[in-house]
Amino acid sequence: MSTPIDFYFDFSSPYGYLASRKIDELAAKHGRSVNWRPVLLGVIFKTTGGAPLTQIPLKGDYSKRDFARSARFHGVTEFSMPSPFPIASQAPARIILWAKAEDPNRVPRIAHAFYQAYFVDNRDISNPDTAANVAAEAGIERAAARSAVDDPAIKDALKREVEAAVAAGVFGSPFVIVDGEPFWGIDRFDQVDRWLATGGF
Amino acid sequence: MSTPIDFYFDFSSPYGYLASRKIDELAAKHGRSVNWRPVLLGVIFKTTGGAPLTQIPLKGDYSKRDFARSARFHGVTEFSMPSPFPIASQAPARIILWAKAEDPNRVPRIAHAFYQAYFVDNRDISNPDTAANVAAEAGIERAAARSAVDDPAIKDALKREVEAAVAAGVFGSPFVIVDGEPFWGIDRFDQVDRWLATGGF
Repeated sequence: MSTPIDFYFDFSSPYGYLASRKIDELAAKHGRSVNWRPVLLGVIFKTTGGAPLTQIPLKGDYSKRDFARSARFHGVTEFSMPSPFPIASQAPARIILWAKAEDPNRVPRIAHAFYQAYFVDNRDISNPDTAANVAAEAGIERAAARSAVDDPAIKDALKREVEAAVAAGVFGSPFVIVDGEPFWGIDRFDQVDRWLATGGF
Repeated sequence: MSTPIDFYFDFSSPYGYLASRKIDELAAKHGRSVNWRPVLLGVIFKTTGGAPLTQIPLKGDYSKRDFARSARFHGVTEFSMPSPFPIASQAPARIILWAKAEDPNRVPRIAHAFYQAYFVDNRDISNPDTAANVAAEAGIERAAARSAVDDPAIKDALKREVEAAVAAGVFGSPFVIVDGEPFWGIDRFDQVDRWLATGGF
């Protein structure tokens, strides 16, 4: 494995969810590993002036249609628009950062479980207890996961992680950086694929 | 030819330009014609609260990089970021509407000429005289094209056209509607292609 691909995402992001179902295979195809980096779009939007897609006039209705259609297009058969939406994603993001510090190999499994819980099973993972339950179902010690959500050191680590993402130019979800080259959106995965195959174009 | 594809675009939109280089072939592949429908993003953004991509923090730098990279990805070898950017696109849009009323078959040729002038030759087509020159080079009577820019009936037709686009849910450029199904962005052309091939998915 050479340099990992940086995969930034928000657990409340539908396109982030779709990308999460594609990123492992895409990276593996090119002999790359994936660094799963949860971010908080709500914080990032304070820098960019962005807003949740579904709340923007015209774009809101379109995006709800496009989420489901893009899921079908990309062969992600499991997708349902959750309610409430969007949600604050601090709880799952903190559990990921805590788990990554302990053992990064566990991270993809837990991240997939969080996305599955929210976008397939409509469980509100913004709730720390629910997030801890989902982590436990993914094989993580529940009490430790639950504690991570309120751990000041983990809170601070997530804050720094989001700041680092903004400093790296990340403004949306999903956002992939390959050897310094930034790609926004699952609709750039075709370009990511070619970039990885050719080293740039 | 069955029902035309509605192709909405702003002459100041880089992704609209890239799409303009792809839409004829895409439609022809599926036996469809294209209805070229110029719109004014500046007017539409009053409804959606949108802003020119290049002026948004973080997204601005990314988008300039992505315009050029997407041009290479889509095999559009002619592309250079013009200055000034963005521009008001009333002049070329009005000439298109006038030309369409006279003879719709001329429209693609003139539209390609406008996009070529701005995104390849860096000519400021917001200027009515420049726009009329470009139209003349595309085989249109110059004086008539120049008059169309200031014609109150054509001005009103463009206003109604933009209102109709907003009413149809159009909020960006390019924007394609196929048999009632909306697709935003050149990065949805892969979905448009499948939709045309399958009648929906």
